[in-house]
Amino acid sequence: MINLETMLSDNAKNMKKSAIRELLKLVARPDIISFAGGLPAPDTFPVDDLRAAANVVFDKHAAKALQYGTTEGDTDLKAEVIKFEARQGVSIKDDNLLIVSGSQQALDMIPKLFLNPGDYVIAGRPTYLGALNAIQSYQGKVLGIPFTAELDGFDMNALEQSYAQLVKGGGKAKYIYVIPDFQNPAGLCWSLEKRKALLQFAYKNGLFILEDSPYREIRFLGEPIPSIYQLDQQGENRGVVINLKTFSKILAPGTRTGWIMAHADVINKLVVAKQAMDLCTNVFAQKWLAEYLKTGKIYDQIKKTCANYREKRNFMVEMLDKYMPKRADVRWTKPEGGLFLWIILPSFISTDDLLIKAIEQEKVAFVAGSGFYFDDPERNAMRINFSYSGKDQIEEGIKRLARVIAKEIQEHESGKGGQNQPLGV
Amino acid sequence: MINLETMLSDNAKNMKKSAIRELLKLVARPDIISFAGGLPAPDTFPVDDLRAAANVVFDKHAAKALQYGTTEGDTDLKAEVIKFEARQGVSIKDDNLLIVSGSQQALDMIPKLFLNPGDYVIAGRPTYLGALNAIQSYQGKVLGIPFTAELDGFDMNALEQSYAQLVKGGGKAKYIYVIPDFQNPAGLCWSLEKRKALLQFAYKNGLFILEDSPYREIRFLGEPIPSIYQLDQQGENRGVVINLKTFSKILAPGTRTGWIMAHADVINKLVVAKQAMDLCTNVFAQKWLAEYLKTGKIYDQIKKTCANYREKRNFMVEMLDKYMPKRADVRWTKPEGGLFLWIILPSFISTDDLLIKAIEQEKVAFVAGSGFYFDDPERNAMRINFSYSGKDQIEEGIKRLARVIAKEIQEHESGKGGQNQPLGV
Repeated sequence: MINLETMLSDNAKNMKKSAIRELLKLVARPDIISFAGGLPAPDTFPVDDLRAAANVVFDKHAAKALQYGTTEGDTDLKAEVIKFEARQGVSIKDDNLLIVSGSQQALDMIPKLFLNPGDYVIAGRPTYLGALNAIQSYQGKVLGIPFTAELDGFDMNALEQSYAQLVKGGGKAKYIYVIPDFQNPAGLCWSLEKRKALLQFAYKNGLFILEDSPYREIRFLGEPIPSIYQLDQQGENRGVVINLKTFSKILAPGTRTGWIMAHADVINKLVVAKQAMDLCTNVFAQKWLAEYLKTGKIYDQIKKTCANYREKRNFMVEMLDKYMPKRADVRWTKPEGGLFLWIILPSFISTDDLLIKAIEQEKVAFVAGSGFYFDDPERNAMRINFSYSGKDQIEEGIKRLARVIAKEIQEHESGKGGQNQPLGV
Repeated sequence: MINLETMLSDNAKNMKKSAIRELLKLVARPDIISFAGGLPAPDTFPVDDLRAAANVVFDKHAAKALQYGTTEGDTDLKAEVIKFEARQGVSIKDDNLLIVSGSQQALDMIPKLFLNPGDYVIAGRPTYLGALNAIQSYQGKVLGIPFTAELDGFDMNALEQSYAQLVKGGGKAKYIYVIPDFQNPAGLCWSLEKRKALLQFAYKNGLFILEDSPYREIRFLGEPIPSIYQLDQQGENRGVVINLKTFSKILAPGTRTGWIMAHADVINKLVVAKQAMDLCTNVFAQKWLAEYLKTGKIYDQIKKTCANYREKRNFMVEMLDKYMPKRADVRWTKPEGGLFLWIILPSFISTDDLLIKAIEQEKVAFVAGSGFYFDDPERNAMRINFSYSGKDQIEEGIKRLARVIAKEIQEHESGKGGQNQPLGV
């Protein structure tokens, strides 16, 4: 073999293996209760309805569904997506829409389109690691912005200051990456006020906003807040927001289909990029989704999924209240939607180290918080998923998690946990 | 809107819209006979068998098929692909195999993995434009190598000379891109001798070979020649060949699923790249293909497709013999497989110009040859597809094509076509 390392591009040298996907392999053992994945509950998948829709495709559209399709996306699916968005008050035309092979493809296309090596993306601390991985695979950098203590969006002062410093130092930012609705990993939801402030910031500084909305429809408590894409549409309509959506959370991830809504000029450029990336999204899957959407069952499907996750989220919060150590420095988010809770532990605990103990000693898994930072990670938090496990597993898993955390605190306070301290500071 | 051009990456500025895909839109009019696309014949799609396989997935594997999958690919599909390859004498293990979202995704992953801006890929003149577009989207360059007059592979002297010159000038090549079996666009097939010589060249110079084999199984005449991947395996087994395969031509493009065979170290790096690109290939499609392959019907399916294309290819060659101007400088390839013929016209004809006349005056379309060159294109050739059209369309289309070519020759020889001459030289 050729010495592979000497042949790799600088892009490749900058790529990181996703900690989560590697971990998912480790925790596939049946004796481990895993809150690590980001998987929807399989009992929400409408198997019979999807089978019926697939059979309509075989009956009526087989020759088209089995052939190559256009890069822009299947005409039928696009028409259905436009209706779906209209029902939520988002008005788009055909040329504002591109069908993609899941949101992750969009997260890869945007840095490819905008970033030269060393260019910056502004993003939250923490933020979705799949977005960080994609940015790094083009040698992009991330200007990390902390959230407010209320978790209602960026600390806007910190944003202003960090950005001014970046510009002063000659840094070039191209876009702001945010997940305003039930963010991965922390489950936080941006307030209307903060969404408006971010849009104004983008206008003022000539930046795009990449608004990633995989969980937007998975709101099981409270009232929807307009997306930043909508706020731009309803206001100055400058077209600076690129909005990503997906069928992964509202229907089924195995469909690997999402969509991008953006200004027609941006969509045009993305189409050119996508041509060279995969020619077109899975044509059968697109026709199949179009037939499913035509039945109108997606709206009840979303309601059903929200009800399922509301119950599980409530139950998980109840179990955390019941079993976790009662301390001011042990706390967790109580999200109104999405798939994840974020648990913050005392600053002397490193969840990177805790994870190994949790798997080995208690057979319970989570994702250590450090993976959700581009640099200088906080190490005393973890992401746990409440959509995938059943109630029995949730109760038993939280019991185990609480035990390993209590033990860690106890060891620290009795002076035994000292070797981990520096990591938690 | 922000001034988009000022925000684009250098990668994006280097991206080219695919001439073919743009053209496909133009020629969608029902009155035009198009030989431009590269579409399989829809009557070869085994709709009932594929429907049955999809229903097995809904019956037995719905929860898995609708969920996220691993980046490496579905275990069942990988096992079936390993069997499929074994039957052709290619022996691979699980860690030599990565399932991808169509071959085009692989053609995008390889330059991302290997090319820094300005790095070179060695490729034929002409070669597949989707590969060229992907290389350009990472600012890669192409060292174009002419084929021999016998069209049995690269002119190896030209390869040696061009490569020596590149190295002397400080240029860095990373891999050689070839389509040895029934190349797109010219339909040519590399001889065994030339395959061996290319492998030796790669060994000697420490280069990878990217062997793109979408048409390998679509051989309708003659005997199979070992792939370069096989030659390496059966010989020194240095693992320098990366082989791309796809279900698009042997089954149906709408499945958007292909596979990469390579050394395990290369596969490992590609898995990391793919994680950030789309997480995993369409999971439903993978399970569906696995169930279809389990029936063993793919082998008869390939035979049936080959028979279909053999008949059409023979008929198209017959029609060309019948209708085209009889001149030594009007000739075409007679491929033993694949989907395309390559027609070479007198050097004074530019097919870029001829295409417009063909569409407007005769309502027949092809792909101008110039699109298949990275630089300094030859302009007197065209690619025509024989898999998609029916026999009636083939006869009528070739008649029309012959008329527009004859007219062009006549005008040139009577002195009227002068304005096009410089382009054809």
